[in-house]
Amino acid sequence: MVNEVQHTCSASSSSKSDGSSSGSESSKDNSRCSTPVLDTDRHERLREKMRRRQDAGDKWFSLEFFPPRTANAAVNLISRFDRMGAGGPLFIDVTWHPAGDPGSDKETSSMIIANTAVNYCGLETILHMTCCNQTKDDITGHLQKAKRLGLKNIMALRGDPAGEEWEEEVDGFNYAVDLVKHIRNEFDDYFDICVAGYPKGHPEAESYEADLRHLKEKVFAGADFIITQLFFRPETFLKFMKDCQAIGITCPIIPGIFPIQGYHSLRQLVKLSKLEVPQEIKDVIEPIKDNDAAIRNYGVELAVSMCRELLDSGMVHGLHFYTLNREVATTEVLKRLGIWKEDPRRPLPWAVSAHPKRRVEDVRPIFWASRPKSYIYRTQEWDDFPNGRWGNSSSPAFGELKDYYLFYLKSKSPREELLKMWGEELTGEESVFEVFTCYITGEPNRNGYKVTCMPWNDDPLATETNLLKDQLEKVNRRGILTINSQPNINGKPSTDPIVGWGPSGGYVFQKAYLEFFTSSEIVTALLKVLKKYELRVNYHIVNVKGQNITNAPDLQPNAVTWGIFPGREIIQPTVVDPVSFLSWKDEAFALWIEQWAKLYEEESPSRMIIQYIHDNYYLVNLVDNDFPLENCLWQVVEDTFELLN
Amino acid sequence: MVNEVQHTCSASSSSKSDGSSSGSESSKDNSRCSTPVLDTDRHERLREKMRRRQDAGDKWFSLEFFPPRTANAAVNLISRFDRMGAGGPLFIDVTWHPAGDPGSDKETSSMIIANTAVNYCGLETILHMTCCNQTKDDITGHLQKAKRLGLKNIMALRGDPAGEEWEEEVDGFNYAVDLVKHIRNEFDDYFDICVAGYPKGHPEAESYEADLRHLKEKVFAGADFIITQLFFRPETFLKFMKDCQAIGITCPIIPGIFPIQGYHSLRQLVKLSKLEVPQEIKDVIEPIKDNDAAIRNYGVELAVSMCRELLDSGMVHGLHFYTLNREVATTEVLKRLGIWKEDPRRPLPWAVSAHPKRRVEDVRPIFWASRPKSYIYRTQEWDDFPNGRWGNSSSPAFGELKDYYLFYLKSKSPREELLKMWGEELTGEESVFEVFTCYITGEPNRNGYKVTCMPWNDDPLATETNLLKDQLEKVNRRGILTINSQPNINGKPSTDPIVGWGPSGGYVFQKAYLEFFTSSEIVTALLKVLKKYELRVNYHIVNVKGQNITNAPDLQPNAVTWGIFPGREIIQPTVVDPVSFLSWKDEAFALWIEQWAKLYEEESPSRMIIQYIHDNYYLVNLVDNDFPLENCLWQVVEDTFELLN
Repeated sequence: MVNEVQHTCSASSSSKSDGSSSGSESSKDNSRCSTPVLDTDRHERLREKMRRRQDAGDKWFSLEFFPPRTANAAVNLISRFDRMGAGGPLFIDVTWHPAGDPGSDKETSSMIIANTAVNYCGLETILHMTCCNQTKDDITGHLQKAKRLGLKNIMALRGDPAGEEWEEEVDGFNYAVDLVKHIRNEFDDYFDICVAGYPKGHPEAESYEADLRHLKEKVFAGADFIITQLFFRPETFLKFMKDCQAIGITCPIIPGIFPIQGYHSLRQLVKLSKLEVPQEIKDVIEPIKDNDAAIRNYGVELAVSMCRELLDSGMVHGLHFYTLNREVATTEVLKRLGIWKEDPRRPLPWAVSAHPKRRVEDVRPIFWASRPKSYIYRTQEWDDFPNGRWGNSSSPAFGELKDYYLFYLKSKSPREELLKMWGEELTGEESVFEVFTCYITGEPNRNGYKVTCMPWNDDPLATETNLLKDQLEKVNRRGILTINSQPNINGKPSTDPIVGWGPSGGYVFQKAYLEFFTSSEIVTALLKVLKKYELRVNYHIVNVKGQNITNAPDLQPNAVTWGIFPGREIIQPTVVDPVSFLSWKDEAFALWIEQWAKLYEEESPSRMIIQYIHDNYYLVNLVDNDFPLENCLWQVVEDTFELLN
Repeated sequence: MVNEVQHTCSASSSSKSDGSSSGSESSKDNSRCSTPVLDTDRHERLREKMRRRQDAGDKWFSLEFFPPRTANAAVNLISRFDRMGAGGPLFIDVTWHPAGDPGSDKETSSMIIANTAVNYCGLETILHMTCCNQTKDDITGHLQKAKRLGLKNIMALRGDPAGEEWEEEVDGFNYAVDLVKHIRNEFDDYFDICVAGYPKGHPEAESYEADLRHLKEKVFAGADFIITQLFFRPETFLKFMKDCQAIGITCPIIPGIFPIQGYHSLRQLVKLSKLEVPQEIKDVIEPIKDNDAAIRNYGVELAVSMCRELLDSGMVHGLHFYTLNREVATTEVLKRLGIWKEDPRRPLPWAVSAHPKRRVEDVRPIFWASRPKSYIYRTQEWDDFPNGRWGNSSSPAFGELKDYYLFYLKSKSPREELLKMWGEELTGEESVFEVFTCYITGEPNRNGYKVTCMPWNDDPLATETNLLKDQLEKVNRRGILTINSQPNINGKPSTDPIVGWGPSGGYVFQKAYLEFFTSSEIVTALLKVLKKYELRVNYHIVNVKGQNITNAPDLQPNAVTWGIFPGREIIQPTVVDPVSFLSWKDEAFALWIEQWAKLYEEESPSRMIIQYIHDNYYLVNLVDNDFPLENCLWQVVEDTFELLN
């Protein structure tokens, strides 16, 4: 992440300063970086990343997925993106099936899946696109939409002709090269373009040599790199690569790796791609064709040894995996190759989005910390993203709540599971306190089920929150229903495995934060107690109607997480912002109803209990400004309970 | 400075959120502060400041000056602004003498003196302006120029008619009220307008009552407050104030206080203003008219007792002093009244400018720390000032060096004094090392003179630099010629008397910084040593030709001073910026020649020694990024000397 290169700028500087040896003038064309480069990745195009990794001798991998068939499968695929993204792929790609309405707004379309990967999972993504049997307008429309959604890379393919007796259309899109030319004509250098290479020659090509010439045409028309069709022997690829180089193809060529995962999927793939499985592989597989585990183990072994040979050749810097949307085999191959790199170090405390317009974004309100996808969704229409300071940007509004119920922002758990976690039947506010407490402690509820998610938290508790577990348990039991918190941190190394983020060599800091729902009775006592902490603790207290009590000076944002790094300006990625708190309040209160109350029958006591809390509780956030001292927020809560007794 | 008010925003919030009780939508008209309000003063108009101080029961004072006759007197007056500004006047004002070309660009004009007070001394300033015998175009021109220079307050006066037999001009500017109306017509609410009140009635008015009616007209035409002519008895003012209120004048009325400072100045003033000195004062003064000290002591006594009576009346919140450009008497009165408030606490580590367009400015490169007026001058054409982050702003260039030799940026000391400090005759580089060393230690040089300033530092060493004195002495003796430095600070309270700044309740931090000229021999060794400190120390090393060696990542700025405050975003007021370092380099090298070499005859050995240093030395800056650890920069220098031995 650190990019500490010694620049010797004598060339450019002396040309500027020539003739000013007596210091008679200063340069007029000073240029400045527009934003501190915390994470080089966010500022580079895919082809630049590839080059940088290659120059650094740093091996990488990428992952191919196909779009899911159902909304449920989409939710699962997105979780897989998050999990496999953790291993550090250079990019993922999403295939395009003309029959499946790939450019539509359906939650399962190639376009929307690629959009999710980029924007919500922060993954560099290539969208496949085929051109055959499509009009120029259709194709331009797809490309424009892809650009609008923040997609920056296209894999340009011909696609399979619709009928058996395909004929070239005059002036139509007949080959991938036509699509490459079209993208470069219409979109200039905006997209990075990838094309397909066939180590054995395309099955429909006149010859292997003719196919190489076609590939060269695609590259010379503007493609930036090549991903190959799968193959079974390393020498197939290495020969292909040498042949490409021999005819003048110099761009990166990435071998497509297919770890064999089962007998049937292998047969299907071979049929589609018109490849032949070598005899030595057939000899192993046929006898074990009914033993899935044995085949997968063999597939992993085979892939590992082939990849090793490719990497050892010195000609291969990256490996592209055909995952078939499965996790286990590919992950195992990558781990055994040692190129699966789970870097616990985060560039920022929150997961960044890969949309180009969010490149400068480096500060967010803390409220959405456990619902980052919702935050991205609600701010997707913003033209500018706050950079350096939250308060600096102009004032774009948050997206309406009514259109935020995107399928992947919904709970991943089905209704029955939620009922087991949150209670089939609530008997009073105390039953709700219990749910919150079980979520914190990780202990089973009275019916023996663990509470692994809450309406405000998609995932189990963050490691960091565990630091506060004992205190959180205590206060939740008594009706301080916490939904967000962080401990104070006074200058821990940026490499700290729990609270660290950003480049190494830095120091990170936090102000203690606590956010919870609670009754108006507790709020009344709390407000009395807060007078004692007036300068030290900032608070915002709001109910669903928007009644708002705060001591924030001039409604300014309060930075609660910041980092100091070598050679950089201060980074302050999270703030408590009084204005966006009111937008978060709408969402936080709505979740009571939409995710919890609606599990129960209308008019049922359980539903009325949640509705009562929604209508009468306050949402409170507290910041202890004195980060070098011991967190006083627990004392504030303790004092409040004491006052009530 | 802290503005911790409890806002209860239920009104505005609930109106926004009405109808969203189920959280169905969020507000679209969120508004955000554009900048963290560290110092309320910078964001208020004069009339608002007055009101706030009055509401807080906080007594204040202001100071009147007239423009100087000579450039030397101007340099002295500006130093006086800095010294008297330290006592915390609410504003100063600069008088306008039509005969003296007051609107010109001369360094002694009213306009330019007021400009200097606002922009370079950071003082809220009122510019007087008279209208009689002037054309509308002239007046509009003056007002436009004042606005352009950042002046925000005008004292609208009639001025003395040119001839004895003055007659009203039809449609001309005959009275101050015409000027008030003109300002409001042409400039809307841009200026705060002050008008003059005459506690005894204007000498030319038909009657006291008629004069009160004229005053009311001026206020109703748009004046914001009134400053009165001087008077000798408190009851004169208090009666006047009651009479004003009785006819409906409700704006602030500020008594003009004239501490008697000498017999002749009193007689002259009385003659000009056509006032009569009360018998009881004459009785005291006449017998001691040749004893200046006695008269001044009496004047101070008299002013103190009159001011006390005014303040005790409860009707007076601020006092306006006619200083006659003198310091002692007024300062003494203010100190005895207890309203002279030297607040060592600074809103930012550097002195802020009062120009409205610099209101948001909160970050500067550290290089100009000892030459803030030069920095302001060289950035005066900028349209935007960096706020929050240095790197965020677009890239305006620094003003050319050739036009920066404004009179008040020149050394305040005459040539002879400089020669005594810096050496009548230099015998080699070592004589130069000695000058630097004497400046640091404060000890006399070999000829018995103290070195109280250097070309790069207008003033004696900052208290903060004293923290580093011993180390600085050691390295200067050996040819590391330091011109700027700061110690590392790891979270001292913002109220710390030496390194603190900003509102109370915060914590301030610094990275250690060292900037010096040194020979290429030392630079070669230094670069070898710096390899050992690669990640920890950032460096920029440049010679006059612009050869530049740095390890700054991507030429990004490095924040070296920052503060964390309750309820606010992070403030980082100083950075080491690689790009502006090249502009500073031009200035820093030029100062060798312009301020030092040119003291000596051309071709003289002394001049050649300075010229040699200018041509061959490097300007180096070092930042130790590890602010929580002990400053390693001294070790870096020590290692360098060791390597050389």
